[in-house]
Amino acid sequence: MKIALIIENSQAAKSEIVHNALKTVAEPLGHNVHHYGMYTPEDKASLTYVMNGILAGILLNSKAADFVVTGCGTGMGAMLACNSMPGVFCGLVIDPTDAFLFGQINDGNAISMPYAKGFGWAAELNLQDCYRKLFDGERGLGYPKERAAIMAKNRGILRDVKAASTKSFVDALKAIDQDLLKAAIAGEKFQELFFANAQDQEIVAYIKSILA
Amino acid sequence: MKIALIIENSQAAKSEIVHNALKTVAEPLGHNVHHYGMYTPEDKASLTYVMNGILAGILLNSKAADFVVTGCGTGMGAMLACNSMPGVFCGLVIDPTDAFLFGQINDGNAISMPYAKGFGWAAELNLQDCYRKLFDGERGLGYPKERAAIMAKNRGILRDVKAASTKSFVDALKAIDQDLLKAAIAGEKFQELFFANAQDQEIVAYIKSILA
Amino acid sequence: MKIALIIENSQAAKSEIVHNALKTVAEPLGHNVHHYGMYTPEDKASLTYVMNGILAGILLNSKAADFVVTGCGTGMGAMLACNSMPGVFCGLVIDPTDAFLFGQINDGNAISMPYAKGFGWAAELNLQDCYRKLFDGERGLGYPKERAAIMAKNRGILRDVKAASTKSFVDALKAIDQDLLKAAIAGEKFQELFFANAQDQEIVAYIKSILA
Amino acid sequence: MKIALIIENSQAAKSEIVHNALKTVAEPLGHNVHHYGMYTPEDKASLTYVMNGILAGILLNSKAADFVVTGCGTGMGAMLACNSMPGVFCGLVIDPTDAFLFGQINDGNAISMPYAKGFGWAAELNLQDCYRKLFDGERGLGYPKERAAIMAKNRGILRDVKAASTKSFVDALKAIDQDLLKAAIAGEKFQELFFANAQDQEIVAYIKSILA
Repeated sequence: MKIALIIENSQAAKSEIVHNALKTVAEPLGHNVHHYGMYTPEDKASLTYVMNGILAGILLNSKAADFVVTGCGTGMGAMLACNSMPGVFCGLVIDPTDAFLFGQINDGNAISMPYAKGFGWAAELNLQDCYRKLFDGERGLGYPKERAAIMAKNRGILRDVKAASTKSFVDALKAIDQDLLKAAIAGEKFQELFFANAQDQEIVAYIKSILA
Repeated sequence: MKIALIIENSQAAKSEIVHNALKTVAEPLGHNVHHYGMYTPEDKASLTYVMNGILAGILLNSKAADFVVTGCGTGMGAMLACNSMPGVFCGLVIDPTDAFLFGQINDGNAISMPYAKGFGWAAELNLQDCYRKLFDGERGLGYPKERAAIMAKNRGILRDVKAASTKSFVDALKAIDQDLLKAAIAGEKFQELFFANAQDQEIVAYIKSILA
Repeated sequence: MKIALIIENSQAAKSEIVHNALKTVAEPLGHNVHHYGMYTPEDKASLTYVMNGILAGILLNSKAADFVVTGCGTGMGAMLACNSMPGVFCGLVIDPTDAFLFGQINDGNAISMPYAKGFGWAAELNLQDCYRKLFDGERGLGYPKERAAIMAKNRGILRDVKAASTKSFVDALKAIDQDLLKAAIAGEKFQELFFANAQDQEIVAYIKSILA
Repeated sequence: MKIALIIENSQAAKSEIVHNALKTVAEPLGHNVHHYGMYTPEDKASLTYVMNGILAGILLNSKAADFVVTGCGTGMGAMLACNSMPGVFCGLVIDPTDAFLFGQINDGNAISMPYAKGFGWAAELNLQDCYRKLFDGERGLGYPKERAAIMAKNRGILRDVKAASTKSFVDALKAIDQDLLKAAIAGEKFQELFFANAQDQEIVAYIKSILA
């Protein structure tokens, strides 16, 4: 799986803590971690939590990433922003059981975590435990497993409802403030990572036109 | 404030626990609590977490409610469903500090809480504490208060982004599976509460056409 | 390691949930789990949280057990009772990071967990995660590892302080209400498990005299 | 009530955060807060979590304080150290519901809290909420209130058991490493606060002899 990591400005100083925890867990499981920034609080390209959501939308809808790991101070803003995007189903994950149940029951394609609230000493251990619950083994199996079928059915209904209430992703991109969109894709590794991995040509073309 | 309570089927047995906790806190603060069901696990009108989201969308977009309190087993499904709706900004709240920070920083219009995961003995106390942090005093003041302006600005940007990526609410309603929509508004008190409080005539008219 | 499980009366209905979670984790790691009861709410021998502490003291001081897993509604009463015993260092563990840090930093010989407060749906997953953090691998290595030496030193000082402030364990046993002591060891498997495993002959002799 | 605050060396930098949160809650409720240090990481008198326990024992057994608020990185070490002292019943409190239930059910005379683990942004809010649950209103009323009598009975039994298993407090003080004891009472405000408030003349005399 291609896992994209997106960090917003208020927690950029913790970028390496989060990145290391994610790599420590995900890479031995065979996943690739693509860090889309921010990398340090001094990065020229600064991401707000709203931009995190837009970027998550671009990566998931274009299939440049299979899963997005993001967050903010409480995790709430980045979660709301991700979920405002067509095709993004972002859980708010605080502890390993949240991560496990989100993976098995909701089987979304993004998580947001708090990197300031409750983030004290040894928080890197909790990050690793959460990632492990998500990325080790198959997701979407239901919990308890006897309820797998009804849970899968409801996920499908939710997907249809969200598709019905949102625009197509390219239409959404076009309707968003274009300066905000530019800022969301201004990260120093965005172009390298995105163009190498994105598979939806319509989205790729639109992003190219924005960068032109 | 008109606070709508929406309970889905898997947690319907706890309907009165949640309702009582909410009334205990909200009514002395001058708010009205409208319980849209489910009331018992045996209710004829059964709500899934996806329907909770649709109902939350109807109530908030029509201004039948100013705030929605909902949830499910983990809170995650109802949160995702709410956030799939235009104009709904639903936090996942687990502890009182979550509630406070969501109210002050994100100032959304809905919360989803877990009514099974972590919901053990004395959980009614945590419900009350969370509600108090949300409904006692003004929301949206920022935390820390020095960051109020930037927080308010980002909320506005998020609102615009979500408005750009979603359809108008009536268009969303029309695009959703109409049987699902009917099921979402089949609760025994829906018509009484909704028609007395809704203020958007276009939504009211569409809901009337569905019920006809 | 011999791990003793002790369940008090208010949570006796969850005895098998806890026992299964503990066995699921500990046995594949090569540990033996000795369940000292309660086994069901209907057991003739009823244990209060205070008796849990006395029983933990007997098992640990006699070396009938290397580690005690206990708890109560909030975990607090059983923790206080365990820690009132000479030679018992009982942590209150709520989440996996608590378990890990208690194991690495404090390296005590007992944990108490809440089996009612916060114990909702999927709580068995959290139990397993906590046990795994405690029983998989070596304890007492410090966290972070650079601080291992100072942490070990403070543990030694704490052990000396507690030894200085408490009586010898047999003197403590003699001073406790003897009816309470009898009730604490009245479980149906106590004699079978205890006499097969205890190594301190003075404690064994005193317990025999009580049972005579 | 006289509430003593004791902070150990690893968290001394947060001394004012904790002190302010405690005063903010406790003083308007009519309680006095006595801060026994540490005050800054640079204090000449450095307290380890084991010393916190000894100091808590001195203050509570002498009635210089009615309640002790302490902690350490995880809260676990200070809790174990407090509970190793005769007459001290110290809860580990992480969230407001813990605080409330400990106050109502266990009605101990000390709490230890984590000031590093889980202590992130806005943690001062959680501190205040926990203190409020403990210090606002009467403790020991039971929860639920119908179980007040049995809860009070078990507290009494626990007190008797601990009294039976520990030495008299002065005997404990005499048995502890006397250099450790001296270090525990070396704080710059100890003598001023202790001698003005302590009521047990035997303990006072022994402490005076140590300081001589």
